[in-house]
Amino acid sequence: MPRILLVNSNTTASITERIATAARAGAAPGTEVLAVTAPFGLPLIVTPADWLLAGPPTLAALAEHGAGCDAAVIACFGDPGLEAAKQLFPFPVLGISEAAFHLACLLGRRFGIVSFTAALRPMFQDCLERHGLAARCVGFRMGPPFAGDPGRVAEERRGLLLDLVWQSVKEDGAEVVILAGAPLAGLAATLQAELPVPLVDGVVAGVRLAAALVGLTPERRKPESPLSGYPASLSALYGGG
Amino acid sequence: MPRILLVNSNTTASITERIATAARAGAAPGTEVLAVTAPFGLPLIVTPADWLLAGPPTLAALAEHGAGCDAAVIACFGDPGLEAAKQLFPFPVLGISEAAFHLACLLGRRFGIVSFTAALRPMFQDCLERHGLAARCVGFRMGPPFAGDPGRVAEERRGLLLDLVWQSVKEDGAEVVILAGAPLAGLAATLQAELPVPLVDGVVAGVRLAAALVGLTPERRKPESPLSGYPASLSALYGGG
Amino acid sequence: MPRILLVNSNTTASITERIATAARAGAAPGTEVLAVTAPFGLPLIVTPADWLLAGPPTLAALAEHGAGCDAAVIACFGDPGLEAAKQLFPFPVLGISEAAFHLACLLGRRFGIVSFTAALRPMFQDCLERHGLAARCVGFRMGPPFAGDPGRVAEERRGLLLDLVWQSVKEDGAEVVILAGAPLAGLAATLQAELPVPLVDGVVAGVRLAAALVGLTPERRKPESPLSGYPASLSALYGGG
Amino acid sequence: MPRILLVNSNTTASITERIATAARAGAAPGTEVLAVTAPFGLPLIVTPADWLLAGPPTLAALAEHGAGCDAAVIACFGDPGLEAAKQLFPFPVLGISEAAFHLACLLGRRFGIVSFTAALRPMFQDCLERHGLAARCVGFRMGPPFAGDPGRVAEERRGLLLDLVWQSVKEDGAEVVILAGAPLAGLAATLQAELPVPLVDGVVAGVRLAAALVGLTPERRKPESPLSGYPASLSALYGGG
Amino acid sequence: MPRILLVNSNTTASITERIATAARAGAAPGTEVLAVTAPFGLPLIVTPADWLLAGPPTLAALAEHGAGCDAAVIACFGDPGLEAAKQLFPFPVLGISEAAFHLACLLGRRFGIVSFTAALRPMFQDCLERHGLAARCVGFRMGPPFAGDPGRVAEERRGLLLDLVWQSVKEDGAEVVILAGAPLAGLAATLQAELPVPLVDGVVAGVRLAAALVGLTPERRKPESPLSGYPASLSALYGGG
Amino acid sequence: MPRILLVNSNTTASITERIATAARAGAAPGTEVLAVTAPFGLPLIVTPADWLLAGPPTLAALAEHGAGCDAAVIACFGDPGLEAAKQLFPFPVLGISEAAFHLACLLGRRFGIVSFTAALRPMFQDCLERHGLAARCVGFRMGPPFAGDPGRVAEERRGLLLDLVWQSVKEDGAEVVILAGAPLAGLAATLQAELPVPLVDGVVAGVRLAAALVGLTPERRKPESPLSGYPASLSALYGGG
Repeated sequence: MPRILLVNSNTTASITERIATAARAGAAPGTEVLAVTAPFGLPLIVTPADWLLAGPPTLAALAEHGAGCDAAVIACFGDPGLEAAKQLFPFPVLGISEAAFHLACLLGRRFGIVSFTAALRPMFQDCLERHGLAARCVGFRMGPPFAGDPGRVAEERRGLLLDLVWQSVKEDGAEVVILAGAPLAGLAATLQAELPVPLVDGVVAGVRLAAALVGLTPERRKPESPLSGYPASLSALYGGG
Repeated sequence: MPRILLVNSNTTASITERIATAARAGAAPGTEVLAVTAPFGLPLIVTPADWLLAGPPTLAALAEHGAGCDAAVIACFGDPGLEAAKQLFPFPVLGISEAAFHLACLLGRRFGIVSFTAALRPMFQDCLERHGLAARCVGFRMGPPFAGDPGRVAEERRGLLLDLVWQSVKEDGAEVVILAGAPLAGLAATLQAELPVPLVDGVVAGVRLAAALVGLTPERRKPESPLSGYPASLSALYGGG
Repeated sequence: MPRILLVNSNTTASITERIATAARAGAAPGTEVLAVTAPFGLPLIVTPADWLLAGPPTLAALAEHGAGCDAAVIACFGDPGLEAAKQLFPFPVLGISEAAFHLACLLGRRFGIVSFTAALRPMFQDCLERHGLAARCVGFRMGPPFAGDPGRVAEERRGLLLDLVWQSVKEDGAEVVILAGAPLAGLAATLQAELPVPLVDGVVAGVRLAAALVGLTPERRKPESPLSGYPASLSALYGGG
Repeated sequence: MPRILLVNSNTTASITERIATAARAGAAPGTEVLAVTAPFGLPLIVTPADWLLAGPPTLAALAEHGAGCDAAVIACFGDPGLEAAKQLFPFPVLGISEAAFHLACLLGRRFGIVSFTAALRPMFQDCLERHGLAARCVGFRMGPPFAGDPGRVAEERRGLLLDLVWQSVKEDGAEVVILAGAPLAGLAATLQAELPVPLVDGVVAGVRLAAALVGLTPERRKPESPLSGYPASLSALYGGG
Repeated sequence: MPRILLVNSNTTASITERIATAARAGAAPGTEVLAVTAPFGLPLIVTPADWLLAGPPTLAALAEHGAGCDAAVIACFGDPGLEAAKQLFPFPVLGISEAAFHLACLLGRRFGIVSFTAALRPMFQDCLERHGLAARCVGFRMGPPFAGDPGRVAEERRGLLLDLVWQSVKEDGAEVVILAGAPLAGLAATLQAELPVPLVDGVVAGVRLAAALVGLTPERRKPESPLSGYPASLSALYGGG
Repeated sequence: MPRILLVNSNTTASITERIATAARAGAAPGTEVLAVTAPFGLPLIVTPADWLLAGPPTLAALAEHGAGCDAAVIACFGDPGLEAAKQLFPFPVLGISEAAFHLACLLGRRFGIVSFTAALRPMFQDCLERHGLAARCVGFRMGPPFAGDPGRVAEERRGLLLDLVWQSVKEDGAEVVILAGAPLAGLAATLQAELPVPLVDGVVAGVRLAAALVGLTPERRKPESPLSGYPASLSALYGGG
């Protein structure tokens, strides 16, 4: 029975609950999900600066709760800290955008990306290019600026998001659609019945694919270097006391 | 407990046994693997012409044995018939090269591809480009022409293959290495302990990722068109008697 | 005087007639065109599954009628069986989409692609990427779903297609426009006088370029492998009785 | 019977003779070839600066000899003046590198480029990228610096060039090989019998493909602008006296 | 105090004045700008043929006025003669489109390109691809055909251009916007205060970056070849009398 | 007189001195350079994890010393924190790898990258792709593993590095070569006289280009969000006390 650690890279506990619920609902039977919140940082991750500053607290959460886990998922679209985490921990670590992109590729030839606000598009675009899968993406369909509570945007903009998915399918030719952004976790499951193409929920993709990777990473050597100015859990990853 | 159908696209039963063994050894506990051989076609798939002619028998095998399965894997590097299969069947279908490429991406930033004979390189290269992941690949390392029994090449060329993997890691900078080609199924598990980077076995990648996709594809409408000149199992997929 | 074999990959004889007429009208003077219909398969090729299943009958038609021909053209947009045919036959073989893309590049810096129904776009897009010429294409302009007789769509949608060509030129910056799809064979010649940029008819492109290649391919060695489950004309290509 | 104008973009008449001979030997029966030398400029084209300065004399040669021709070929690898020529003349104009690249694509999936001196590689590479076909090329194999008579390099380096072709086939996986550079015109025909893959001669490719394009370009409007400082034949193209 | 030579590649002196004014206003304090007009050629550069024919007069201007300069800028969008100039002169030479693209990359992750007429788009697109920066560009926003005086288009279309910049920012996601085309020189400075993202003026980019390169190019060997049919200033660059 | 802030992203003061010396030697006359060391983090930046953890201290150094500066340079190859810095500060910020890539493009058509140890290649490769300039790079030439004092590697490996530069020029066709990595700062100036192509020193490129950007960035709005767990200088950037 795999035990998956799910890290919310922002400091907002209500988002952690939302993604934990989505993860448990979408995981294969028997998967155990442990969801934790970043111990410091920012309440919401929107810009490149936010993304950078969310990396160290994500690593700290993995360091503090990773013992006894078989794999981990960084549950913040944009995958802050992902490459560092892959290097530093002895178990597989995936990000939810990485997982969503690859799962979408396995389900169809071309995928679209839908989210609630265009403000996230540059970060998503960078992330897509970073993973090398831009050629598989037919484009983005994003809603207008959103100033409300991210914890409720999935419900408030349900109709708009459904429309955007249909545009992605009909106008852009998407064979699969990703509902992107941690605040939309769980929404795909409620919309799927109304749609002819698979919807991908990044959190579900993350726990599914993380479970598939259990046991496939060899042990790596720990770095040894005096890391200063960060919490002890991070210094310990570098061999520090 | 997922039930995975594994199709060998060539007509050589000894290869089917080899991949079945590798699949069962590498699958997550509880996975059931049903391995079948292509009902017609060619004993070995090497060229683009072979690849095309292996497609219809692969679809026929899926049609004849798919009932009751949760997902399927086409266990022939080059993935003959893959896109047609994704379109025609109500369960997820993956190919082992597709699965190997995506799994490798999840395990590291850049992967190398190693196989026993350079004759396969053009087909592998096309396949890599088709899946859009060429930018993640650091290159190929392939052995010289091989005229022996493909069922024994993994053992006969074990030392050579290990050398090629090391070259991929040290000279090309691979962080993950794919052992490509159905005749190498099962080899990765025996070499892994000697290597510092993950080795990817396409058959294992296939059954792991296929299990992760169970239940994620919506139902599709069957085509209706009079398909002639093929076995009845294929015509039936097109609505024919 | 070159003799060109033109293969319609679907089983609909009226389409064969249409493409034969277009080919003869557009070929260089003195070119002889022999047009044949696929001996089995499907009456219309629309999806990836159709495309795969149209490959073997296309090869069978080439095998049955190729003797005495100087070159051949696969007259089905998407070029089913093309790479296998290039490998198996002793004369040059081109596909009409391949020919259209390359001819368009020779006539201008950037080409647009126009066709009667958006349903064909994914197949055309894949085909374009496969030939490596996506960077030369300014985009697609496709009509709405079409449920009528493909043999008459060129006439029924003449006005719409002319509008789409103009959009490709004015809005997308096309310097050349391809009228894509075998059902549009012959249409370019009737529209050309109304337009300032060259229109490319895939069938004409095919017979023109096939004639240009006559005599340029060296002899290849025939494969020898027991191919089963296909018509005798195909097994014979693999050295079988 | 098509009449093709062949322009040597440098001022060396012995090279013009060489390419004329190769063109006549490789053209389809009945093709008439008129070969002319650039009326001013440089005796050899090697660098980007040479390439630019060879453009206007190439246009002048086309303007002075184009009347009565059905198509033209710029017989200088690197295609100086090509895009301007396509715009300014009422008949199709091809360059020999453009023609070689596209013909090679029609003959095989991946081509190699062989030439006598590495000094030409940057210009060839730029040219390849400009035509958008870099992904179809497996790489360059070029000889060492050459200080002799370019008119005799094909014979003097015959053995070396044959070796480079074999390397391109065996080590790089080329299915077709281009012998690049006007000084190699005619060499492919003498080497072909010793090789299992097609060799492409740019000049032959040029006259073959130019003949295929006859009649496919619509009339264009002449520019009207006072062009100063160039020969009268060029000013006339811009509407000047 | 760097001395920068600014070459207007067309023969219209009023454009030279406009770009000189913009260059002096935007250069770093202490920069000396010498602006000259092409000694022959065309009054306006719009098409690929114009672009080619503007190359030699640009080189002639550089040859005639370069002595005593520390760096030079070719002030014509599309950069005619740029690569030849980089090869032939002992000081750094930049083009204003090259400079605009690179400066834009340094100011933000993705740039948009705005200009007054769509007629220039193909030339700009080619130029962008040539410099390898297409992936950093979010797209073009161009005005309708323009038949007036290019020397006044910046003022006449000020409102339209401001709208196009806003579209590039809001709809395409540009973080930086290039105002492209020599006739728009100086406009960016007057619009900047109304916009939240940096506007790039190619002429300013050119003089800024040219000043940054002073002294960084090693001496090159002059070519020696008898160049005929061009003004003596050009033949002298090739070692001629 | 521009005042440029130069931040060493690691905590090793001897490296800061080295880059300060190189920057002052290579800057345009009159440039003032203020060099500072990261206030916390790691003594050397080699891996993706190091790179991430070097980002926040780089931002902290910029926040603590940026007042009164006209532009800033992050003097660590790989550019940690670069995009966040561009977003958060009111003056232009460049990274030395970004600056080296763009400057190299301005000096020649294709650049090579040389450094002292292959261990840095993956980070450099990622950085190159991130800036979108991979197509302008002819490849890497890197030395073997290095376990000595990075502060002395430029002198200890001078001969090896010179050889690698020559290989890049002769075998790869580089027209410009970047000496990559902060420990090589200052080396280019001492090698330049022995080489026919420009050598690029990232630190010099950084201060030159930073000076060119002074005054070209509009003011941005500060983010307002409660950032926790970081030094006060960083929280202040987010509007915190």
